[in-house]
Amino acid sequence: MTQSLVSKILSQHLVSGQMCAGEEIGIHIDQTLTQDSTGTMAYLQLEAMGISRVKTKLSVAYVDHNTLQSGFENADDHLYIQTVAAKHGIVFSKPGNGICHQVHLEKFARPGWTLLGSDSHTPTAGGIGMLAIGAGGLDVAVAMAGGPYYFTMPKICQVQLIGKLPPWCSAKDIILELLRRLTVKGGVGRIFEYAGDGLETLTVPERATICNMGAELGATTSLFPSDAMTRSFLASQGREADWLPLAADPGAVYDETIMIRLDKLQPLVALPHSPDNVVPVAKVAGIKIDQVAIGSCTNSSYLDLAKAAKILEGKRAHPDVSLVIAPGSRQVLTMLADSGALSALLRAGARLLECACGPCIGMGQAPKSGGVSLRTFNRNFAGRSGTPDAKVYLCSPEVAAVSALTGKLTDPSEYGQPPLVDMSITSTRNDNLLIFPPGQGQATEVVRGPNIKPFPVAKCPQDTLTGTVLLKVGDNITTDHIMPSHAHLLPYRSNIPYLAQFCFSGIDAQFPNRALAQGGGLIVAGANYGQGSSREHAALAPLYLGIKAVIAQSFARIHRANLINYGILPLLFALPGDYGKVAQDDTLSIDNLLEQIKGNEFVRAFNATSGQELVLRLIATPREREIILAGGLLNFNMHRGGFEHA
Amino acid sequence: MTQSLVSKILSQHLVSGQMCAGEEIGIHIDQTLTQDSTGTMAYLQLEAMGISRVKTKLSVAYVDHNTLQSGFENADDHLYIQTVAAKHGIVFSKPGNGICHQVHLEKFARPGWTLLGSDSHTPTAGGIGMLAIGAGGLDVAVAMAGGPYYFTMPKICQVQLIGKLPPWCSAKDIILELLRRLTVKGGVGRIFEYAGDGLETLTVPERATICNMGAELGATTSLFPSDAMTRSFLASQGREADWLPLAADPGAVYDETIMIRLDKLQPLVALPHSPDNVVPVAKVAGIKIDQVAIGSCTNSSYLDLAKAAKILEGKRAHPDVSLVIAPGSRQVLTMLADSGALSALLRAGARLLECACGPCIGMGQAPKSGGVSLRTFNRNFAGRSGTPDAKVYLCSPEVAAVSALTGKLTDPSEYGQPPLVDMSITSTRNDNLLIFPPGQGQATEVVRGPNIKPFPVAKCPQDTLTGTVLLKVGDNITTDHIMPSHAHLLPYRSNIPYLAQFCFSGIDAQFPNRALAQGGGLIVAGANYGQGSSREHAALAPLYLGIKAVIAQSFARIHRANLINYGILPLLFALPGDYGKVAQDDTLSIDNLLEQIKGNEFVRAFNATSGQELVLRLIATPREREIILAGGLLNFNMHRGGFEHA
Repeated sequence: MTQSLVSKILSQHLVSGQMCAGEEIGIHIDQTLTQDSTGTMAYLQLEAMGISRVKTKLSVAYVDHNTLQSGFENADDHLYIQTVAAKHGIVFSKPGNGICHQVHLEKFARPGWTLLGSDSHTPTAGGIGMLAIGAGGLDVAVAMAGGPYYFTMPKICQVQLIGKLPPWCSAKDIILELLRRLTVKGGVGRIFEYAGDGLETLTVPERATICNMGAELGATTSLFPSDAMTRSFLASQGREADWLPLAADPGAVYDETIMIRLDKLQPLVALPHSPDNVVPVAKVAGIKIDQVAIGSCTNSSYLDLAKAAKILEGKRAHPDVSLVIAPGSRQVLTMLADSGALSALLRAGARLLECACGPCIGMGQAPKSGGVSLRTFNRNFAGRSGTPDAKVYLCSPEVAAVSALTGKLTDPSEYGQPPLVDMSITSTRNDNLLIFPPGQGQATEVVRGPNIKPFPVAKCPQDTLTGTVLLKVGDNITTDHIMPSHAHLLPYRSNIPYLAQFCFSGIDAQFPNRALAQGGGLIVAGANYGQGSSREHAALAPLYLGIKAVIAQSFARIHRANLINYGILPLLFALPGDYGKVAQDDTLSIDNLLEQIKGNEFVRAFNATSGQELVLRLIATPREREIILAGGLLNFNMHRGGFEHA
Repeated sequence: MTQSLVSKILSQHLVSGQMCAGEEIGIHIDQTLTQDSTGTMAYLQLEAMGISRVKTKLSVAYVDHNTLQSGFENADDHLYIQTVAAKHGIVFSKPGNGICHQVHLEKFARPGWTLLGSDSHTPTAGGIGMLAIGAGGLDVAVAMAGGPYYFTMPKICQVQLIGKLPPWCSAKDIILELLRRLTVKGGVGRIFEYAGDGLETLTVPERATICNMGAELGATTSLFPSDAMTRSFLASQGREADWLPLAADPGAVYDETIMIRLDKLQPLVALPHSPDNVVPVAKVAGIKIDQVAIGSCTNSSYLDLAKAAKILEGKRAHPDVSLVIAPGSRQVLTMLADSGALSALLRAGARLLECACGPCIGMGQAPKSGGVSLRTFNRNFAGRSGTPDAKVYLCSPEVAAVSALTGKLTDPSEYGQPPLVDMSITSTRNDNLLIFPPGQGQATEVVRGPNIKPFPVAKCPQDTLTGTVLLKVGDNITTDHIMPSHAHLLPYRSNIPYLAQFCFSGIDAQFPNRALAQGGGLIVAGANYGQGSSREHAALAPLYLGIKAVIAQSFARIHRANLINYGILPLLFALPGDYGKVAQDDTLSIDNLLEQIKGNEFVRAFNATSGQELVLRLIATPREREIILAGGLLNFNMHRGGFEHA
């Protein structure tokens, strides 16, 4: 039987279920990664599971989000992660080593293996032929404990890249084009598998850019074959032995196919405030910009920054522009220094930030009030930059660098010859910021700073659920809306009681007080609720505030899983118009809830305020229903005897 | 008549007064500098003066403190400073260009000229033979407006440096030795003029290290001659034409002389929490350290960081140490990149921060709870790092680099051969982050973000002062105690109403509420009140809270001037034991105040709570008395017709 590459890797890792789109499958996870903003919670949960040593082939704990260290909280979290990693046999990547996805590509990602990461951009490793999925920290903790990762088998969508990119276009424009066509909901329930002759000219970091931002499509993941390009990248990292050739069988059949003629592309830009708000740069050229930021896990490879350096070399960034660069890893930074590209960037007036997520996660470089920021990043949600009224545009390094020179959004096609980067420079490999765990880690003392608080634990549902609609929101609510993430809050990711005070603060600052005063309640939302990050804090904070169910028109994949993992019911409106039948402050009730969870797709509810019946749906697998009934995944697993003796 | 070099430069700039220690003199200021954390206020005041264009030979506005940009406030401040600078004929140094003192040495500092800067470490330029003084922002604004800078003529203290530093000792150990001998009060009312054969081996950046940390002695400034070493430094910056030879006359007489035998020095370290808490490293070696930070205006020259790179080259920082480096300027960073030193640092595991003050001003890199941090900086006041219970040690780059390798405080003398740095690398000069003002700036629109609030203006004193002692504190209260400065507060330096809520927050968080509730009152303090930074926010916040007088045993120079500039009475206890006669919450009153301010050194006060008489002193020049009576310096100057038509 001819198979897609996705099917091949999945079937090699399949633990349970049928690989039919819509069915729940469980797969074995070879590697996990965490970053620090989701990692502290993942490791607290791993500890709660009573595991002595991780059972994966490799688990890595990165520190890349909370690196500003405005107070003791960050360094305390770093030390907690460092010690808990040593104790449990996990590699620790110190702050300064780089962004998890870039470093993972360089050091650990392997074609044909599976990776589960507590970061929504984990699919970046798809660029090297790895099946890499983002998930909530608890799911990653379960994977570290040796448990399978369960998810709904997605449709497999082939993306055929045909031809060659025109001058001044690059990988970023390919994924922006997909976002333009499909929107941020277009990838939901799908894995994108790339193919076509257009692959031949795309290096691994460029493929990684495409897979990275596949997360913005809502896709489960994205995958490239492993070919000569892959081999060459692994060889440059001294890891040629990790290479193996991987491709779909000729004639493999896909659920869907999309074709992109690369030669027809032009430089694109996503306008505020959504990554799918994509238009040609030429159409909006001339907008005055205040800041240009080049970096993030999307575009911070040596190639990305060296291209920017070539464009900026011998020139001067516009005086009104703050140009900041943040290399993706220490290896990239060292290569930039050794090649002279760093000097070129500095001479042109670039500010150099630490190798970390930085401004992409709102950790620094907030634009001025109402400022326009052009970024090579992956998300431009309102407020995510740290400046509530800033306008963030997403583009390629080429567009960013040229625009930094002109001071306005500029189509580089009009800017002469595109940059030619000499890629022959040797990757400077060095593991000095990686700490490999001792063979026996049990003696390690885990150090917990005062900001690291116990996490809330879900309870089993009662048979009657009655609650007030504490908040009603619209479509495309992101995890940034639910649990904002910026320099003032990110240091509190291991302190849910504190963080919960700011739940939905950008939408309704009174929500947390209202929820606490009423002893919890319900949230009502439109479509694609919970898009964006994998942060389970967007479930943990509502759990802490007593939220028992979210009723939405649809959910984003990771967030829906996080809700279930924390025992919050993810209910859907069965009839689209019913969204209009519920208002904020209405009191809803669901009787006979336990039986309804057990067996029914349809859940009958009653709006006591309006006196109307509501038909809801719980689309969930039998396993997920059990988890909800058990009061969340942690309780579910504990009831089953935990993991240590599994 | 034989003259000291200090006297020569002062007499060439003398505008008023007699150059006798203790007398008030006024001098003409050639250049000014501001940094952003004091600069916004200085420029708001310059605007209030109605000046169209600065009257100095050169004024430079640097951005080096508030560079994290956790919210819109920083970028708004940067833009305000950029536009106000363009309007008034001031050079603007963009964020990323480096720390004001390092960049000023490279680009603008000139032997024999005078510099007034709104930063207490302005004396750094003394390393190049410039008479450079730190002052409050309002004094700097007056200097920009063409007014003289008035201060009490200090004693001139010659420091003879004899012989040659032993291996592993460097400039930092010289100034730490002075701090060990003289304490943080030892330089009050003094200018230190360096001489002796020991100078011959000290480069300009090393001399600058010594002058920089002379601020910690409480000195008015420190000065080195301008010699062949100075010429060579200026030549390396393409500024040989700015050089002129400058030295004291042979046989010049000094008020005091101190001798330091360089060959007798050993590596030193200042223990927490004061820069004068100095002991040999050997005596406290072995303390486990969590963080090593190399940088700050004290030790961030190319030589400093290249030495650290040599020590770390081919080795690995201890796994438990977070090693961070912050080059002093973009020029230094470029030289590090071009020479390979940056690669060596990165390979050893260093984290690279932006070229800025960074952790030295608590902007990032706060250590873990209770952490031990070894820093090449100038201040180790409790809490200044951003972590209230951290323990900060101050040392040379050599001690820092070697200790980073061992993971504990280490005397480098036991560590083999000291590093030899090749200084032949060309300084890479580039002005791309300097914005020179237009010839006519009046058309420039000054942009004010929403966080930039009007500053409080002092009022003329009433004839009877009655007030409660709202706070009683001990000796050596720093401006960090009065107006804390860290990542959470520094962004609010242009918003006094917000900042005032945190006045004295580390000592007594209720002080601001108490002050506001009682409509203001008094502060009582011990010796050396207001040491540390030049920040006038330590006067502006108390002014906003209604503080009318501070009664202390003694005052630090800049803070005392700031109090007068903002119309707050700086009173002294005439009898040392009287400090004990006043308790917090006592009500004090001073009758006939206006007459007493006008004429008397002694001021009679009454403690209504205890029924005791108090004899206080107002040691102030006639000019200062006029300023207090006028309700602060701004009112004083306005009453005299302002500056534009002076």
